[in-house]
Amino acid sequence: MIIVIRPHTSEALIEEVIREVVKLGYEAAPIHGATQTIVAAIGDESTHQTLESLDALPQVERVLRVQKRFKLASRESHPADTVIDVDGVKIGGGHFALMAGPCSVESEEQLLSTARQVKACGASILRGGAYKPRTSPYEFQGLGKEGLRLLVAAREETGLKIITEVLSERDVEHVAASADILQIGARNAQNFQLLIECAKSGKPVLLKRGMSERIEEWLLAAEYILAHGNPNVMLCERGIRTFETYTRNTLDLAAVAIAKKESHLPVIVDPSQGCGRADLVTELCKGAVALGADGLLIEVHPNPAEAMSDGQQQVDFDSFARLARGIEPFLKATGRA
Amino acid sequence: MIIVIRPHTSEALIEEVIREVVKLGYEAAPIHGATQTIVAAIGDESTHQTLESLDALPQVERVLRVQKRFKLASRESHPADTVIDVDGVKIGGGHFALMAGPCSVESEEQLLSTARQVKACGASILRGGAYKPRTSPYEFQGLGKEGLRLLVAAREETGLKIITEVLSERDVEHVAASADILQIGARNAQNFQLLIECAKSGKPVLLKRGMSERIEEWLLAAEYILAHGNPNVMLCERGIRTFETYTRNTLDLAAVAIAKKESHLPVIVDPSQGCGRADLVTELCKGAVALGADGLLIEVHPNPAEAMSDGQQQVDFDSFARLARGIEPFLKATGRA
Amino acid sequence: MIIVIRPHTSEALIEEVIREVVKLGYEAAPIHGATQTIVAAIGDESTHQTLESLDALPQVERVLRVQKRFKLASRESHPADTVIDVDGVKIGGGHFALMAGPCSVESEEQLLSTARQVKACGASILRGGAYKPRTSPYEFQGLGKEGLRLLVAAREETGLKIITEVLSERDVEHVAASADILQIGARNAQNFQLLIECAKSGKPVLLKRGMSERIEEWLLAAEYILAHGNPNVMLCERGIRTFETYTRNTLDLAAVAIAKKESHLPVIVDPSQGCGRADLVTELCKGAVALGADGLLIEVHPNPAEAMSDGQQQVDFDSFARLARGIEPFLKATGRA
Amino acid sequence: MIIVIRPHTSEALIEEVIREVVKLGYEAAPIHGATQTIVAAIGDESTHQTLESLDALPQVERVLRVQKRFKLASRESHPADTVIDVDGVKIGGGHFALMAGPCSVESEEQLLSTARQVKACGASILRGGAYKPRTSPYEFQGLGKEGLRLLVAAREETGLKIITEVLSERDVEHVAASADILQIGARNAQNFQLLIECAKSGKPVLLKRGMSERIEEWLLAAEYILAHGNPNVMLCERGIRTFETYTRNTLDLAAVAIAKKESHLPVIVDPSQGCGRADLVTELCKGAVALGADGLLIEVHPNPAEAMSDGQQQVDFDSFARLARGIEPFLKATGRA
Repeated sequence: MIIVIRPHTSEALIEEVIREVVKLGYEAAPIHGATQTIVAAIGDESTHQTLESLDALPQVERVLRVQKRFKLASRESHPADTVIDVDGVKIGGGHFALMAGPCSVESEEQLLSTARQVKACGASILRGGAYKPRTSPYEFQGLGKEGLRLLVAAREETGLKIITEVLSERDVEHVAASADILQIGARNAQNFQLLIECAKSGKPVLLKRGMSERIEEWLLAAEYILAHGNPNVMLCERGIRTFETYTRNTLDLAAVAIAKKESHLPVIVDPSQGCGRADLVTELCKGAVALGADGLLIEVHPNPAEAMSDGQQQVDFDSFARLARGIEPFLKATGRA
Repeated sequence: MIIVIRPHTSEALIEEVIREVVKLGYEAAPIHGATQTIVAAIGDESTHQTLESLDALPQVERVLRVQKRFKLASRESHPADTVIDVDGVKIGGGHFALMAGPCSVESEEQLLSTARQVKACGASILRGGAYKPRTSPYEFQGLGKEGLRLLVAAREETGLKIITEVLSERDVEHVAASADILQIGARNAQNFQLLIECAKSGKPVLLKRGMSERIEEWLLAAEYILAHGNPNVMLCERGIRTFETYTRNTLDLAAVAIAKKESHLPVIVDPSQGCGRADLVTELCKGAVALGADGLLIEVHPNPAEAMSDGQQQVDFDSFARLARGIEPFLKATGRA
Repeated sequence: MIIVIRPHTSEALIEEVIREVVKLGYEAAPIHGATQTIVAAIGDESTHQTLESLDALPQVERVLRVQKRFKLASRESHPADTVIDVDGVKIGGGHFALMAGPCSVESEEQLLSTARQVKACGASILRGGAYKPRTSPYEFQGLGKEGLRLLVAAREETGLKIITEVLSERDVEHVAASADILQIGARNAQNFQLLIECAKSGKPVLLKRGMSERIEEWLLAAEYILAHGNPNVMLCERGIRTFETYTRNTLDLAAVAIAKKESHLPVIVDPSQGCGRADLVTELCKGAVALGADGLLIEVHPNPAEAMSDGQQQVDFDSFARLARGIEPFLKATGRA
Repeated sequence: MIIVIRPHTSEALIEEVIREVVKLGYEAAPIHGATQTIVAAIGDESTHQTLESLDALPQVERVLRVQKRFKLASRESHPADTVIDVDGVKIGGGHFALMAGPCSVESEEQLLSTARQVKACGASILRGGAYKPRTSPYEFQGLGKEGLRLLVAAREETGLKIITEVLSERDVEHVAASADILQIGARNAQNFQLLIECAKSGKPVLLKRGMSERIEEWLLAAEYILAHGNPNVMLCERGIRTFETYTRNTLDLAAVAIAKKESHLPVIVDPSQGCGRADLVTELCKGAVALGADGLLIEVHPNPAEAMSDGQQQVDFDSFARLARGIEPFLKATGRA
């Protein structure tokens, strides 16, 4: 780490900083610059206490980190792409996965008809929320265990693998008993206890980026899962919160390229949450594929106008068929099937 | 709700919208304007399904909500200020509470010395983290149950009430057995299962605003706790995430005035998290008091430069004494002791 | 417009609102809902004074606009794509333009060598800043008129058209005498006097989106140019400012699809400013093309490490050659050459 | 500056970085850390070219600035508070100024009645827009020179000093001939040519913070004015753009304390723009005063509901009288009259 000392600081006060650096286990290398002194603290930042607390000293202007804080998630620690095998369906390392289905599981007919349609269009994984995190306590909270039962029935009929969100540490065990992939939503992106619990389940985890989570923080959240023994993590970009109001969120497609560069984990894009508008989903899918996304997570509903949650961002069956065809040339352009 | 129809839409397609509005249980009142038609949907938005899904129809340009989504948290439902009685310490309705203590509980000596100092300066509630949500899995995660034990010991000696953060649904019961107030941190601001669990404990809850949570969403998170039977909720503004990098967060002091206007719940300000810099804390406290905050939550440490978490934003004993004296004229200016 | 009246407002106070609506030239249609009254104000919002001022009345909760505020820029007013003809080089309506060159014009050799390289790789337009808006007054401010002279020389040699930024109303005339396209930078995105002056020059204008400009505001800025008689406007997405610090800006690629949907104007993407990192530029170009961008504006420098401005985001000659080849499959996938 | 080299970089590539550092005029001090090497570049960052361009080299991970970029605006260069004397009215250094008046000058009666009222309530400076920057070209653009004439008439009658916005370089001369203070609006916060022109006028300049301007950038914009020979600059915080939609902007009151700490220039707060809602203005004024603001800029209108611009954020005469009385205890609490 680097400690920037304020201009015109006395030698005695610089010495005080150096003593603290040494006390906290680092070697201190002061450099006297044109107008200011800096103290480089040499040592492994991941095994020593951070020196950011030194900012509390009045003579310290700033403390700058040098090293990256994520290890297991980093490309340096694992140069090859991670390929996740979901019971035969591969994701990452050139394997592209189309994940689609309703925002919420609402009924047997709704789910099954959607499952058949998305399968016919080339999806390999069925999404559907059984537990729904809703901004208001008065909104539909999902069918719960009945929703899980319907997802399992849809898998039995169609062979699609299942991804569904888990909201509570207490639900992890029984959700993991039904689902093939556990989804962590944006609101729980830094609910570390839930992440640890999901890690322990051994199931692949799709980790959404928080609404205002920096990429470094997102990778550190993935690090929680990896460090608790579960290597099967997918990162999912789903839009960040900005000042723009035309869309629900601002889909940060650069984050796809960045996450793939910094990390070996597969990166999925959720354009439905990413913009909150069905009419933009297909175009965003093309962009996501062009930027190298390893998969897409898309909300599809037989009749979006009557959906029990987020109808405005769900595409109908015809639109999904066009979408699936529409992304093909872009998959080819990126060297994928 | 109001459904805005696109310009140049045929009558037949407007009728389709009206049929959907009626089907979902509202009365439809179309108004033909100069360039566009709008359909007003008359009905209680809190007991009917939202019509936002109608945005999925191509002829619909936008759907606008009319009614407020929070009820129990609203000033309309409860015109008088809520006063929370924490075992004799009152908060809200003119009662101001100074809550202070270390970011993390680190040791008996650290906690007790801090407790004595903050009590001597007028604090009535001791803060201290036993469970710490840390961005990286490699950072200090708190002393856990030992931290709770030290907090209880500090209460016994000083008589201060205790506030501490709870991170996991599974911890609520034993944390509630020790603490006087449960704190929900910004990262769990929309961890609704944790909110419900805390509601059920019956303990007062201090609910921090999420890093990118709109005020309406914050009040709806409070609504989760109220709707699950716990009326003792305090709102806590702790800064929002913006583009500014000088401070860790941007403290939204207007939110204090807004929350007090829209809601009857006490509003607390956390300037330590709010700016992430010890040197700004006192000034922000003055502003918070001037804007009507019912309390302050301040991080204090005997030696911030060696703190095990967030030392840069913790004030030392002398600074805290000055701070406590410094806010007095502003409490008086707002008609408080 | 729609005026939402607070719950429990007396008839007399609702009448006061209706009188104001009528006084300001609208017809008022009140609708009494389940819990609240709304007043629809019927009339052309573009020719009447806005009613947003009614929010000043205590009984008014909110005022909602219905109509879009931009006219000439809207797809409704001009369904076909605008194609801009820059002295033979067409942009928009299926015509794709590669614009490339150095951030700043630094010297004859630097500019000419870059011009030759970008031309060889397929660019049709040369970019280069003669007047540079710099955050600090102590940074390199551009070569000014000498820079313009070098740009003209490069056009003479290579046949490339020229785009360059204009910072001052007083420079518009002489910059327009040299350049083929006038560029308005993000910092001047709402410098309306400069926009009007550029409109009057008759030259095509490339209008960058402001750092925190909503899409509606961007289109309204374009409306200033169109309304002052110049139809040749290109919109340029160059990243918005968010909390993310990995990149300089967050490139909002959804804005490309939105701008093309809402407007007939060509949309250009500037990935260099958009991320501020040379290593991400090629990937972002692919995404921009996939989303339908009509052109790219890319910073290229013979030796980025020694560039006089923004070297970190400029690609070198080899990288640019790879980039130009790399986007070809994506142009084909979108049905372009 | 500090150049962070990627882990596992060869000595030869580190040498390449060192050669570039030396070539650009700095002395290079490499430090070999536990996992990475850093190169400290010793030299005055304000007189040498920035090394940020070195980020273009693949072996460079990041480049960090050490020194502050603003000089004349900094507290280090000018420890005492700047006090601006506007023809007898002092601002800064303990002198507090209440500036108030309509958003736009609309008519003689509107302006004069407002001027009399704000004077009676203790204002010393009259605000009023003659040139208005409006998001849409179809909105009221101000009365222009006639507005200036009315402002001068109001000064003659009341003795109030005048502050008014200038939008165009070409208007600076004649606006400066009428006004006592030139106001630069948020949209022109980085319109450096306008800043330079205002600097040259010799008049005091009130510089608003841009909508998404970092504090460092705001001080650098002030530096443009100072460096062009005009020491009479006031900084004005007027809210930044965030995701929150309850208010028009998020007033960053911490920025007041920060600007006063980093700089010697007076800091003014504009709560009207800062929140965009008349009902919050008084509370925000109290907070601004508590945090040490040297003045307030408040929009006042005889009949806000019929204002030609921004009525929703203008307070009426009675409200302004209450506001002026309401801030008095807070001025006292900060040791001012």
